[in-house]
Amino acid sequence: MTTTAWNRDDFEARLREKGAAYHIHHPFNRLLNEGHATREQVRGWVANRYYYQIAIPLKDAAILSNCPDRAVRREWAQRILDHDGHGDDAGGIEAWLRLGLATGLGREEIEDLRHVAPGVRFAVDAYVNFARRAPWQEAVCSSLTELFAPKIHRERLAGWPEHYPWIESEGLAYFRNRLSQARRDVEHGLQLTLAHFDTPALQRRALEVLQFKLDVLWSMNDAMALKYGLAEVA
Amino acid sequence: MTTTAWNRDDFEARLREKGAAYHIHHPFNRLLNEGHATREQVRGWVANRYYYQIAIPLKDAAILSNCPDRAVRREWAQRILDHDGHGDDAGGIEAWLRLGLATGLGREEIEDLRHVAPGVRFAVDAYVNFARRAPWQEAVCSSLTELFAPKIHRERLAGWPEHYPWIESEGLAYFRNRLSQARRDVEHGLQLTLAHFDTPALQRRALEVLQFKLDVLWSMNDAMALKYGLAEVA
Repeated sequence: MTTTAWNRDDFEARLREKGAAYHIHHPFNRLLNEGHATREQVRGWVANRYYYQIAIPLKDAAILSNCPDRAVRREWAQRILDHDGHGDDAGGIEAWLRLGLATGLGREEIEDLRHVAPGVRFAVDAYVNFARRAPWQEAVCSSLTELFAPKIHRERLAGWPEHYPWIESEGLAYFRNRLSQARRDVEHGLQLTLAHFDTPALQRRALEVLQFKLDVLWSMNDAMALKYGLAEVA
Repeated sequence: MTTTAWNRDDFEARLREKGAAYHIHHPFNRLLNEGHATREQVRGWVANRYYYQIAIPLKDAAILSNCPDRAVRREWAQRILDHDGHGDDAGGIEAWLRLGLATGLGREEIEDLRHVAPGVRFAVDAYVNFARRAPWQEAVCSSLTELFAPKIHRERLAGWPEHYPWIESEGLAYFRNRLSQARRDVEHGLQLTLAHFDTPALQRRALEVLQFKLDVLWSMNDAMALKYGLAEVA
């Protein structure tokens, strides 16, 4: 048991080590990003992951609702605008829907959630409920899986056009947008986390919270693997 | 007991009738707006009401967090930007702080909430907690005291410069801004309420919810009247 807190660099390194448990390593995600998924598996992933996408603004609004710090709220609110859209920007949820259309799904079958596996629903709901109930700093910390997101988005952008030429390329705009947004978002969340979790007990808690969120993403992939299978295309 | 729902016009009229219980009629507000308040009473009102101001974005974020309708969220999010500020706009909370400065209060004594009466705190917290727990449509409905707000703001803008010439006039900008914002906001909230509460039981519930919010505002004024008194300046 540590008796002194890690300094900020060491604490950040511990948080980043958690990337070993990121769903980039999940067999279902590897199947997708290594180009071995069937059309049904790709579509299943997009339709199920949509449930996560629509939960993100609810999660971020829960953080706002629990956060008494106006300066933090001003910055965090941008995430809601990015996902829901604002003014001329149709937003990230709409971009995800367009990804779905580009894979051949219909808008209605995505929006009515008919393809969403119960296990995906439970995992995502656990994340939103956590954000509603937990101290806002913990909910911020739980968002730090964004630390690991640029790599998974880059894999998709690099590999999918070759692996899945049947997906219309403009459908991948979501991943391009998130590359810049996630960089800005993660910097804000990371600085808040490094500043707040400044005792050994709090730092251990931060790692637990990040593990919880990693479990959410991993569990979603488990549910999708069970539903759509892990058999590779020959 | 009604057995059929009111049509939209009748339902709106019932909601508007609730204005009879708006805190514009509270003795403490009448003291303020009729020009009989002491500097201490004016400052006490501004400092206590600040607690309500800082709760508004938390309440609105709670509505966002509970609302699965993206189109509603896109519009409702504007309230958070208006209060917290966004880009070059310093926002409504900052405008309220400037009102406080214009009455001679210091920024610190407003922000540290030292003047806030427990009764004000409990009433405002009840409102935020309601918005967190209730169906989002009820939380929207509870915001409809905005129906009655333009009149109370206009009273302040018309009377205060004459009654309280010692308040720097730019301090009243908050009330000016809210005249246009409240009109847009109330129209959105009213249309959502008229559309959702469409059975006799739901319409009765909507009136209960609006009464609850009226009680919040009235109770805040009770607590301020007890703390600062109702004696008029001679």
